Formats: sequence, structure tokens, C-alpha cells
Amino acid sequence: MKSRQGSVQYQSDWNIMAELTGNLLVAQSGGPTSVINASLAGVIQEAGRHDCIEEIYGGANGILGILNEELIDINDEKKRSIDGLRYTPAAALGTCRYKIDFKKEPEKAAKDMDRLFEVFAAHNIRYFAYIGGNDSQDTSHKIHEEAGKRNYEIRVIGVPKTIDNDLPHTDNCPGYGSAIKYAATTVAEVGLDVGSMATDDGSCCIIEVMGRSAGWIAAGTVLAKRGNPANPPHIILVPEIKYDVDAVLAKIKETVETYKYCVMVVGEGIKNKQGEEIGADKSHVDAFGHPVLGGAASVIKKFVEVKLNTKTRTILLGYAQRAAAHCASLTDANNGFACGEAAVKAAIDGQSGYMVKIVRETQPDGSVKWSTGLQPLTDIANVENFIPRDWISEDGCLPNEKFVEYAKPLIDGEVKPPMEAGLPKYVVLDKSKVEKKLPPRQ
Amino acid sequence: MKSRQGSVQYQSDWNIMAELTGNLLVAQSGGPTSVINASLAGVIQEAGRHDCIEEIYGGANGILGILNEELIDINDEKKRSIDGLRYTPAAALGTCRYKIDFKKEPEKAAKDMDRLFEVFAAHNIRYFAYIGGNDSQDTSHKIHEEAGKRNYEIRVIGVPKTIDNDLPHTDNCPGYGSAIKYAATTVAEVGLDVGSMATDDGSCCIIEVMGRSAGWIAAGTVLAKRGNPANPPHIILVPEIKYDVDAVLAKIKETVETYKYCVMVVGEGIKNKQGEEIGADKSHVDAFGHPVLGGAASVIKKFVEVKLNTKTRTILLGYAQRAAAHCASLTDANNGFACGEAAVKAAIDGQSGYMVKIVRETQPDGSVKWSTGLQPLTDIANVENFIPRDWISEDGCLPNEKFVEYAKPLIDGEVKPPMEAGLPKYVVLDKSKVEKKLPPRQ
Repeated sequence: MKSRQGSVQYQSDWNIMAELTGNLLVAQSGGPTSVINASLAGVIQEAGRHDCIEEIYGGANGILGILNEELIDINDEKKRSIDGLRYTPAAALGTCRYKIDFKKEPEKAAKDMDRLFEVFAAHNIRYFAYIGGNDSQDTSHKIHEEAGKRNYEIRVIGVPKTIDNDLPHTDNCPGYGSAIKYAATTVAEVGLDVGSMATDDGSCCIIEVMGRSAGWIAAGTVLAKRGNPANPPHIILVPEIKYDVDAVLAKIKETVETYKYCVMVVGEGIKNKQGEEIGADKSHVDAFGHPVLGGAASVIKKFVEVKLNTKTRTILLGYAQRAAAHCASLTDANNGFACGEAAVKAAIDGQSGYMVKIVRETQPDGSVKWSTGLQPLTDIANVENFIPRDWISEDGCLPNEKFVEYAKPLIDGEVKPPMEAGLPKYVVLDKSKVEKKLPPRQ
Repeated sequence: MKSRQGSVQYQSDWNIMAELTGNLLVAQSGGPTSVINASLAGVIQEAGRHDCIEEIYGGANGILGILNEELIDINDEKKRSIDGLRYTPAAALGTCRYKIDFKKEPEKAAKDMDRLFEVFAAHNIRYFAYIGGNDSQDTSHKIHEEAGKRNYEIRVIGVPKTIDNDLPHTDNCPGYGSAIKYAATTVAEVGLDVGSMATDDGSCCIIEVMGRSAGWIAAGTVLAKRGNPANPPHIILVPEIKYDVDAVLAKIKETVETYKYCVMVVGEGIKNKQGEEIGADKSHVDAFGHPVLGGAASVIKKFVEVKLNTKTRTILLGYAQRAAAHCASLTDANNGFACGEAAVKAAIDGQSGYMVKIVRETQPDGSVKWSTGLQPLTDIANVENFIPRDWISEDGCLPNEKFVEYAKPLIDGEVKPPMEAGLPKYVVLDKSKVEKKLPPRQ
């Protein structure tokens, strides 16, 4: 599985490390997921077990809030709220898309880094856990390196997070299992619906999911088939493969002829033969002479309607697929929580400059046990992990048994948020702010 | 509440009716819902309790299958499958959009009607329950009237079904409560997500839901607010009201300025000042000179991005909102089941030409009890029920307390489909066909 190659075993050397006393700062970054707060809960609950961690602070809106010295006093939160993070979607601390980019803006990046260490020093931050995807791991890596240069003692651990599942070295990324549990559930339900309306006229439904360059989410909906070729989704297109649009249309036609309907899932970033994004394709005009615009699903819908004369409807799950905690995977939430815990344990043990990774251990009976490991951040930053080509059928239109074997354990079990008046009752943190000690950021 | 006006009380006169022995035919029509099969289960289980009903048949794909003499032998189905209909979405018997239209195609309609009664007679159908929306109630009404003219003894009862909630006289339509439970859950979750990403840049998310002429589904997402004005959704637009697009944009701007983000829900059929559908508007061009096309949400997205320069994402729930049985309302499913039962009870009691309706009885403590009643099909067919104007704020942008009071009880309780390998395990009927007795339909 994914994490096997290049694996670095976690070596505990706590017995030779001097104990480092100070405060812990945790922050969330990038697009939220259904379980990003489970990782936060893991960090907080593990941090609470160690006397050397005096205060637990949260960065409001990721690195952006830290730069503005906007720190949340986690010890001021209700225990009930902390517990509730295990089933609450979205980034409870707030998140951002801010990047410290030494290549594009070296001066600004250097200034940001100075400011970060000012904030760290002012609040005696000695432990930093950053929950995020590729960019955030890169930020963590830079902070770890800078700390060495500046001789500032801090232990920096990255916690993986992304529904895109594109971080390398970890078996999977917390958030992904929940995203595909929700997407596969939706595809199965919509498939039943469209199938029950199928008459000789034929119809097509195209569901667009996230994934600009990696097709993990689209591919994950193959689980809705439950191994039955007749079951939806009938076609799954991923951004890793260049598609001949006419060949795809022929496949849709064949599917409609066979089953009277076709349910297709597309990653938002799928590409045509020329490698151009189909959803951004402006070179085609529809039957009315208008340019075809607006996302992969709607572009293909127009092709199907115009060229195959088959009634087509689209679904755009958008943010719902990363926020649908009512349909989250318990395996995923538990792994997310474990990653948070492991980050603090590693830091307490003296480690810095690592990302926690999820390790899969397949048992002789086929069941899966999960554990965590550490991977140097140098191996993570700016590396994107794609679906192996041999996990997808030769024509590129359906993930195969290898993919199913990988993905199936990730959606196991249900997170059951408490309900109130018919809706999930999620927690919201009070977010009382830590008193500022520095002049405002320039 | 909705059902109060024009209510006809159900009068049981079973003691004076001669017992009618024969077979029952049940069929499903129009767009499926999460609970249309709950009504089917109600019909089947109640029918099984009466000796005068000899065989229970299902029409494959609604009236279309009946015309083709494609009848499903329900007594051949496993008990487990019948039980599972209570939590299985989509139309388990298959559905259709076929209409017997005496106005537009009188000859074809007359021929269809002849054929229907041939099929009824060939299979000794004496009870007919048709589960559907407006068009289907119209079909049931015509069959009831034709039966009188033809002196063919059959009892025809309509069972309400539509996520659009636009049937008159019934408090609500089975399918609606589940649709808004799912849509409000999604809006609440997406709202948390977008809110957690809110930084000074501001952002907007537009969620498009079904509802071409009635805005019940869009309005129902107001429940996600839980009475807190700061909570999403901040703006809800319904097709019943004509909107000044510039005024809506000003409201979005104000919301983003206040909360740093705006979550908006739009019914697919919302209209501009001139009463034209915004989603079908071809008169505007975007910043690149391209015509603005493709659904209400994507049209408004372009306006927001171009005129307000605010990053905007859209979600198109599409078929998912009527199929998401994993998030169905137990109240809704129970009411759907009760409507199915009531249809058979009424027919056994000698009634024909009625639609079952749901009656709300608000208790002194504010809780709601549900019962069923009957309404003549003449009152139902081709009448559309809209949201009362005084249930929506003066500016038309948010349903008020009156709407909330109406909608809140409809999403109460959870249907919990059994899970298998991380996904809901729905039932599929075997659909063994009843032997045909007639020559093929001409």
C-alpha cells in the first residue's frame, strides 16, 4: 500500500532527550475536512497528558492568525466542546490558505518568518502541530529548519489532512475516507434513483467531485458498485488520465444501451486527449453556438445531450464532500484523532521536522489494523501522490480490484454526531483569545 | 397549517359497503423520493391484512408498465425486502414520467385508457393505489372517473409523494421532510466549512436546490440557522418571488461585510424582476464576453465574482436531495408509510377518487401528532401549493418564524438504514413478472 515505499521507522529516543517545558500551539490550514477537528482533538487531549506542556494555544485561521498574534486559549474551552471536535466538521480554529513562499516572495517570507518566531518566543511556544495538506507540511518544514538556524528550541510536527489523499508516504490522508464514504453513499443513492426512472428513452447523470490533479475521490466512488458491474457508477474519470472525449461518449452510449441509464463520476480536473482540462475547455460551442463552459460535468453534459441526444443531469457536490460529517467514516475519524495524538507524543519524545503518517497493517484474516509512524517533512513537502496507473482499468474508465482493496477499509464504521431537532448538533469553540504581547504585525 | 383549508373529513362507511374481492395494483410515478418506498411498504403491508385482496401486483415503471402489462408479483418478494422498503430510496417498482393527457393528445389518451382497463380486467384489478405527485393524482382522478363511465368496479386512491411539497390540502407531502432534512444538514455543514475559512478576503457559497415553481425545499434550509441570524444560510431565494438581482447582490455584499462570508440557497427556478428564470437568462455576458448560462447558482456566482469581486463556489445537489435516504426524516418516512396504509384502508372501506392527505394536530405542549385524511382528487389535480407570502420576510430573502414552525416537525427523527461495508444496505426487489394475458400494446 501507499505508505510502504520510503518508509522511515519512528525511533523513540525520549530517554536521552532533555524535557522541554513550554506551551503548545496547534493550528489548522487549507480546506477543511469532516475529520480535521478529530486531529485537533487528538492533539489537545494528548497535550493535556503531559506536564511539560503548560498551555495549549490554537492559532486562529492557521498561520495567518499566528502572524497576527491571534491565539486561542484552548484550556478555556469546555471539555464538552473538545470532546465534540471528534464529530464536528470544518476547521474549529479557523483555517487559511496563506503560504510563506520563499521562492515567489522571498522578502515577505523572511519577514513572516521573523514575525512567527517573535510570536513563538513571546508566548513560549515550544511545540507546534500544524494540521494540513501539502502547503502546510511545507510551512512546517520551513519552520523546523528556521528554528535550527535561529537556535530556537521548538518541536514541529505536521499532521496530515486532505480529502484529496495526495500526500505521499502516508497510507491515506485523514479526511479522504470520509469524503469517499459520503461520495460513494451519494452515488449509490443517486444510482438507485436514476436506475428506477430508467425507461427506453435512456438517461445519464454526471456527478462531479473534487480533485484537480489527483482522482482519489472520484475513484473512491467505485465502492458504491459493491463489485457488481451493473451497479452505478458505470464510468469514473480521473485527472491522472487523458481521455478521448469521443471514446468516453461511446462508452456512455454503450452503457445507456445496456442498462437504459448511465451514472458517471468525474474528478473536477479531468483532461482531454491534449491534456487540457475539460471543464475549462473554451474551444467547443454547443448546439446554440454558445461556448461550452463551467466545470467538467456540465461540459460533458452538453456533449451527451447534443451528440447522444440523451437527457442528462449533473450534481456538483462541492464543499459538501469535505464537510458531510453526518456521513463520516469512523475509521477515518479515528485515524485523524490518532495522528493528532501521535504528533504530540513524537514532539514530547524529542522529535521535530516530521509528519505523522498512517500505517496500514493487513492482518492474516484480511482485516486492517492502523498505526502511525513518522516521515521526515523533507520527503513530504511539494510531493503529490497519484493513483497508481495499474489500479485503474486499461481504458481508464474504472478503478479495479487493487483500488477497491485499498479504499474499502477506509470507509468502515460510522461517526454518529448527536442530533438535535432533526439536525446534527456540532460544537463551536468559544475561542477566547490569549492576551497579545507584541505590537501589531507590520 | 397547510391542510386546514378545504379539508374533507374521512367518513368510514365500511359497514354499508359490499365487500369487493379482487387484486390490488400499486404503482409509483414521477421523480422518486427518499420515502416513496415507505408508502409502497404501507400499501403492501396493509393489503396483506385483508382477505378480499387476493393478489398484490406492482406496476413496473408506473402507468407505463401497466400499459405494457408489465406487472410485478409482490407476493413473490421476500418479506425482508418488503420490510426494507421503509428505508430504501428511489422507486423500487420503477417509475415513469408518462402522462395520459386528454387535452394535448385526446386520441392517444383514450386509447391508453382503453388499454388500462383491459389490463385491469385481465388481472381482476379492483384496487388501485398510485403513489405520485400532481400529474399522478390527475391520472388517478381520470381512472376513477373512467371506471364510473365504464361501470368497472375499482377503487382508486392516490398516495401523495413529492419532495417539491406542492400538493394542496395535505399538510405536507411525503418526501419533502427528508429532502429538507438532507438539504438543511448539508447547508449547516457547508456553512461551518465556509465560515471556518472566512478571512478578510470574504467568500460566498451558493447552494442550488430543486424547486422549479415552488420554493419549499430552498425555504426548508432555514432550519439550519437554528434561529440564529448569524448562522448560515444567510439568504434564501424562492421561485415564488421576483428578485431585483442588484438588490440581492447588495444583500450578499452586506452579509460578506458583516460575517466575512455568505452562504446562500436558491431554488432552481428563481426569477428576476421581469419574472424570467435567472438560471435560463441568456441576455447577460460575463467579464470575458461569454453569455452567462447554466442554472441559477452559476449565473449568480458569475454576478458575484464580476460585480462584487468575491470568490464564490457553487453546490448543485440535484438528484441527491431526493435520494439521500441515509439522511431521511423518520417523521417523513412514517407519514409516507401511513399514507400507504391509509390508501388501502380507505379502498377497503369502499372509498374511491380520493388522495390520502397528512393532517397535523398540534398538541397543547407544542408537539405534533400526525394522522391521515382523504381529499377528493378533483381538489388536487393540477393545483399547485405555494409558500404563503407572509411566511417569508418582506424583502423575500428569508423564511420567517411561521415557516420555521411549519417545517421544524417534518425533519424530526432519523431513518437508520442498515450499514454494510461502510455503506447503506438498501433492498432491491426481485420483480418477478406476472404472466401476461393480453396481446402486446399497439
